[in-house]
Amino acid sequence: MKLGRILRESFEGAVPRLVVVQPEHDRVIDLASAEYQRLLATGASAEAARRLASALYPGSMSAAIAAGPTFLSAATRTISAIESIDTVLPLDQVQWLAPLDPPVMRDCLAFEQHLRNTLPGLAAAMNAEPRIPDVYYEKPIYYKGNPLTLIGNEQEVPWPDYSRRMDYELELGFVIGRPGKDLTPEQAKAHLFGVTIFNDFSARDIQSIEMKGQLGPAKGKDFATALGPWITTVDELDVHNLTMIARINGEEWSRGSSSTIMWRVEEIIAYVSKAEGLVAGELIGSGTVGGGCGVELGRFLKAGDVVELEVEGIGILRNKMGTPAPAGWMPERRIPATQ
Amino acid sequence: MKLGRILRESFEGAVPRLVVVQPEHDRVIDLASAEYQRLLATGASAEAARRLASALYPGSMSAAIAAGPTFLSAATRTISAIESIDTVLPLDQVQWLAPLDPPVMRDCLAFEQHLRNTLPGLAAAMNAEPRIPDVYYEKPIYYKGNPLTLIGNEQEVPWPDYSRRMDYELELGFVIGRPGKDLTPEQAKAHLFGVTIFNDFSARDIQSIEMKGQLGPAKGKDFATALGPWITTVDELDVHNLTMIARINGEEWSRGSSSTIMWRVEEIIAYVSKAEGLVAGELIGSGTVGGGCGVELGRFLKAGDVVELEVEGIGILRNKMGTPAPAGWMPERRIPATQ
Repeated sequence: MKLGRILRESFEGAVPRLVVVQPEHDRVIDLASAEYQRLLATGASAEAARRLASALYPGSMSAAIAAGPTFLSAATRTISAIESIDTVLPLDQVQWLAPLDPPVMRDCLAFEQHLRNTLPGLAAAMNAEPRIPDVYYEKPIYYKGNPLTLIGNEQEVPWPDYSRRMDYELELGFVIGRPGKDLTPEQAKAHLFGVTIFNDFSARDIQSIEMKGQLGPAKGKDFATALGPWITTVDELDVHNLTMIARINGEEWSRGSSSTIMWRVEEIIAYVSKAEGLVAGELIGSGTVGGGCGVELGRFLKAGDVVELEVEGIGILRNKMGTPAPAGWMPERRIPATQ
Repeated sequence: MKLGRILRESFEGAVPRLVVVQPEHDRVIDLASAEYQRLLATGASAEAARRLASALYPGSMSAAIAAGPTFLSAATRTISAIESIDTVLPLDQVQWLAPLDPPVMRDCLAFEQHLRNTLPGLAAAMNAEPRIPDVYYEKPIYYKGNPLTLIGNEQEVPWPDYSRRMDYELELGFVIGRPGKDLTPEQAKAHLFGVTIFNDFSARDIQSIEMKGQLGPAKGKDFATALGPWITTVDELDVHNLTMIARINGEEWSRGSSSTIMWRVEEIIAYVSKAEGLVAGELIGSGTVGGGCGVELGRFLKAGDVVELEVEGIGILRNKMGTPAPAGWMPERRIPATQ
């Protein structure tokens, strides 16, 4: 099943709605509307039908996933009984949101070729040894992103005032389906709900400056991360054998395969679950596939560029770069204390 | 006003409840219960009183703060009309939660003395220049923590299987009151809702290993962060002049003052707001006050140790260290590709 989130107008402004996406029919189905119609047809009152439909299908995908297996089985029942044309929308006319609103968001760096192409240079810039740190071969480490700045398919990418070097990153987004803690990889397999496309847009200039502080990326990543166009549930995919492509203004810049990942997704999920635990609806990025970003190619993005990431079995995530924001306040440099 | 969150038993298990804390009367007031009583006394039906009270005072503090000024003015009205003893609980008998459930959580490193005491050693361990990176004097940088593993006052600190060197960190937690983006420091002042105590528990052994990967701390911090015992609203505090103390098993280890901070809180908030924006109910840690952790003193925590952080105008946040978890699965080391 392919699951997405869209914005629809209501009496109280635009509201997020969960949808089943059927690209083969060029349509999406508004789940809460379809369930409302289905319940009415069974004799439910309008009030009861609205109440039950909105409880099953809130505007939050992570809240829906947190219901457990009830969510997907309900969605199957809901879409098997479409009777009203109101619940079906043409695929090319909806306003997409990021398909997930995760309570926490991590991003790994699990493709060795990307490490080999980028990290030695970054280390040298940090006045450290120009080699890949051992820890990448020891653990599937990650940074944490800002889940509040996720954008969806066709949303414009804001360009922060502090950057001149904007880049894309071609990644998978793993969506967690149920809670768990201190899992083994074998156990972790059952905790993967689905996969989406993750474009970890990066402001390379600020990123390399701030990473010298050893606290990880922040302003270099957190202005926006694109996710979508929808989530494909795991039953429809071979997660470790997906072709991944990036095109800029229609020109192919990157091509790779999820088969080259150094840590399998179940190892990543098991590692994340250690001590902290997982919650339903959280998001873990795979890291960039080898060759999957501009910095590996010596090329960067310009205002107005259209970035398309395509992953087999999912679809195409398309975003246009905005124009640089006007210069705002910047912190004033401090003078180090002398002692 | 002092605002906290506690757990109370209900028909459907323990539920989080928002409370006003009155340490001077050794009591807390359950806001939803008090508002329910107040509404009943005005002639509301029980159903309407429950509905309105739970809309004003959900279990989530960040959701309550997101209502804007309505929240604090309603709380003032609610507690001015206490008539039922049911709504008042003795301070020493409640089960505390972290007072905030933030949608995103950042932690700065804004005290220069802590930088001087710790970072050169860490840099040397990373085979980088043994000095404080310039970026700390250029911007109030931060890492992002895991808001899902916050614990409250008197909750036990889980001890992960991967650590032998556990430490505390004495910090302030700044609670954001309303949304904003690209603010100046002058504008940012109005976005601070209150302050709480932030104990950034740290597994120093794994932290120094994983930080070599340049993605920032993760497993070294994210197993637990203590917050509390409650939030004191800004009108009751001089944020830049608070005495901060840490005691381990009753012995004072750390003493500092928020007056020594290198970046003022409004500069931190303005910087965080750049490009990303703030949301109501998010959390920003100040970073550790100079001398405010064991690694600066060459001392570490043991299982069963009781860690008390006290901040003037707020209170005492007390947590006991748990015992080390049994060894679980660990990732298997990868062999680097040769080319």
